[in-house]
Amino acid sequence: MTTQEILKAAKAACREASRLTTEQKNQALEVMAESLLAHTEAILEANAADMEAARGTLSTVMLDRLALTPARIAAMADGIRQVAALPDPVGRVLERIDRENGLHIEKLSVPIGVTAMIYESRPNVTSDAAVLAFKSGNVCVLRGGKEAFRSSLAIAEALRAGLKQCGICEDMIQLVRDTTRQSANELMTAVGYVDLLIPRGGAGLIRACVENATVPCIETGTGICHVYVDAAADVEKALNIIENAKTSRPSVCNAEEVCLVHKAIADTFLPRLRERLTNREQPVELRLDERAAAIIAGTPASERDFDTEFLDYILAVAVVDDVEAAIEHVAAHSTGHSDAVITEDAAVADRFVAAVDSAAVYVNASTRFTDGGEFGLGCEIGISTQKLHARGPMGLRELTTYKYVVRGNGQIR
Amino acid sequence: MTTQEILKAAKAACREASRLTTEQKNQALEVMAESLLAHTEAILEANAADMEAARGTLSTVMLDRLALTPARIAAMADGIRQVAALPDPVGRVLERIDRENGLHIEKLSVPIGVTAMIYESRPNVTSDAAVLAFKSGNVCVLRGGKEAFRSSLAIAEALRAGLKQCGICEDMIQLVRDTTRQSANELMTAVGYVDLLIPRGGAGLIRACVENATVPCIETGTGICHVYVDAAADVEKALNIIENAKTSRPSVCNAEEVCLVHKAIADTFLPRLRERLTNREQPVELRLDERAAAIIAGTPASERDFDTEFLDYILAVAVVDDVEAAIEHVAAHSTGHSDAVITEDAAVADRFVAAVDSAAVYVNASTRFTDGGEFGLGCEIGISTQKLHARGPMGLRELTTYKYVVRGNGQIR
Repeated sequence: MTTQEILKAAKAACREASRLTTEQKNQALEVMAESLLAHTEAILEANAADMEAARGTLSTVMLDRLALTPARIAAMADGIRQVAALPDPVGRVLERIDRENGLHIEKLSVPIGVTAMIYESRPNVTSDAAVLAFKSGNVCVLRGGKEAFRSSLAIAEALRAGLKQCGICEDMIQLVRDTTRQSANELMTAVGYVDLLIPRGGAGLIRACVENATVPCIETGTGICHVYVDAAADVEKALNIIENAKTSRPSVCNAEEVCLVHKAIADTFLPRLRERLTNREQPVELRLDERAAAIIAGTPASERDFDTEFLDYILAVAVVDDVEAAIEHVAAHSTGHSDAVITEDAAVADRFVAAVDSAAVYVNASTRFTDGGEFGLGCEIGISTQKLHARGPMGLRELTTYKYVVRGNGQIR
Repeated sequence: MTTQEILKAAKAACREASRLTTEQKNQALEVMAESLLAHTEAILEANAADMEAARGTLSTVMLDRLALTPARIAAMADGIRQVAALPDPVGRVLERIDRENGLHIEKLSVPIGVTAMIYESRPNVTSDAAVLAFKSGNVCVLRGGKEAFRSSLAIAEALRAGLKQCGICEDMIQLVRDTTRQSANELMTAVGYVDLLIPRGGAGLIRACVENATVPCIETGTGICHVYVDAAADVEKALNIIENAKTSRPSVCNAEEVCLVHKAIADTFLPRLRERLTNREQPVELRLDERAAAIIAGTPASERDFDTEFLDYILAVAVVDDVEAAIEHVAAHSTGHSDAVITEDAAVADRFVAAVDSAAVYVNASTRFTDGGEFGLGCEIGISTQKLHARGPMGLRELTTYKYVVRGNGQIR
């Protein structure tokens, strides 16, 4: 099937998808989980072929992202069952408005329609995205990276076999067969066919989608996250939070990239920070502004280091005059993902929270919590760093829109 | 000031705008209303110059849209006071989530930031858009049409004078000085400066924005609205609703453009429809599909007539087999704005409501009610016909986004 044919079939499947009952969807998800497990062998074979082709061209980290095992497939199936257990986001009455003229208005949550996703090398995204779209009544068109194509196809086929078993139109889950740039461009510009495009992957992919998409697109995931250590910080909390935010998983978007330290405590705090972050098995390279470099040893920071998502064991460090200077720095350099203040002073915390305009603003906690699961949304299809529609972790509800249903008895205006 | 300078000043004013209290905003709105009235003479002079320049180049309808009178200026001032009386959309706690690890999460409504609006010849949009943006804590960058430039500038200056009187940064309300295509393009591509772009005007303007914008943009206002008259329709209601939907204000987006009639009643209903719509001071031209043309006289419809927003005393009419055929027709031709079913059969109504995916779906009422005021939103900055962020009439709440504020006590992940 060509991408155009896939888009047409997806659009045609929308109405049936939106009409599925919660029970039908949950039963189908259970069958899809079983089907995925039943297809384990085929998926592993496809993955072995992907791995074979990728060896030598992908880094070890990327190869690990690509690799599937029976345990990882079982985890995907568990993930599907967890989605089945979540509340149905469709059909909620968000608002009731009764007008004096007798019109009864209901604002009702409905699926968005065709959600397209362009992603990179992790084949499990295929399953995650497909089931979240399905549970929210949407039809998905998935376009994964070429390195994972065979694995993604095998996963998609397993899920589609599950739909078929339930007598549900398989076209609700579609994988684009073409992994060239052309197919990505076709999705970005499929006006009238794609109701929502979500890119997931590196900054380059996301920028390409945001800049070239003529269909509605949600910018996700680039995180230059800051932790500001205030003069009134509890130093132990600060050290724990920074170590966690920087090192627990440096490759993810909610990891800390920049640490700002109030000048009043810089002399005492920075040596302890250096001790904590460099004296460990996987040491963190510190890139220091001039004021920090006057206190501790480290790499001199270039201007660019404060605008870089390192995704690595690297932390940019600057000394600032006060919370206002920290707020200015965040405003100038943050990607609006997650930024934190560490302070025991409630006024400083309130000021930071009010002035920092990011999807998630933290007081005395690690930025690593910006995650659908950690926020109690149950799942996550991505983290929006834009301001329209959804901000921060996007779960099932963020995959719905609404319509107004207006019931009257002959009212005219 | 160049457009770039205006954008920079707008961005710089965002933080102050987001910090204004409800009281400060409402007081300033009152002063702005007074200032607008106090500037009546200057505004009328500017408008006279616009009218003078436009005569001969604009149609009578467009000239009427452009014209200001003391009464119209007073109506704008009243509009400002009405916005002052509306609830503040900023600072609402949309959700509270308490996690087991002790994190307290609040989902808090906040302004979007810089909202840009590109519009055409009605100078009152300048005031409407500016005060809605201001009340919702946003900074606005307005770019009106060249025909109304002098009027818009005089209005913007009056509003800015009001802000200044209150000691509030005037840059929160900005009017772009350049009315060439270039300034529109600059706004559409001002990534990092414009958080939301709302085009308001004709289909061409809206399409240009949606296709060329690299900043988040909301598609507004094109309405190919349908009324489906079911076999079980109350004929009197149907006639009243169609006459109202078609003729009460044909130039607006929520006016009916297409009437679909169930075949079982076509023989009796169409002659009455024709009588009602053609036997009037301002007769409606009927463009009939073959089945309708076999019953009543009228213009034969071309295929394009069912995909045209006439905005005029013209109605396309088709006979359909049943509600399913009506739903198919709507799915194929509606712009997703407002579509109605006229029926006394609850099952048919429910089926239509469930299957039609438009911003507003009506049962036994005129499509003309799709309007912020009529929906009880108190005001309207536009009607979204897309599915992301906002759908249907956009009021103050739709000019806000949210952020997650996460308070902890040292939590790490």
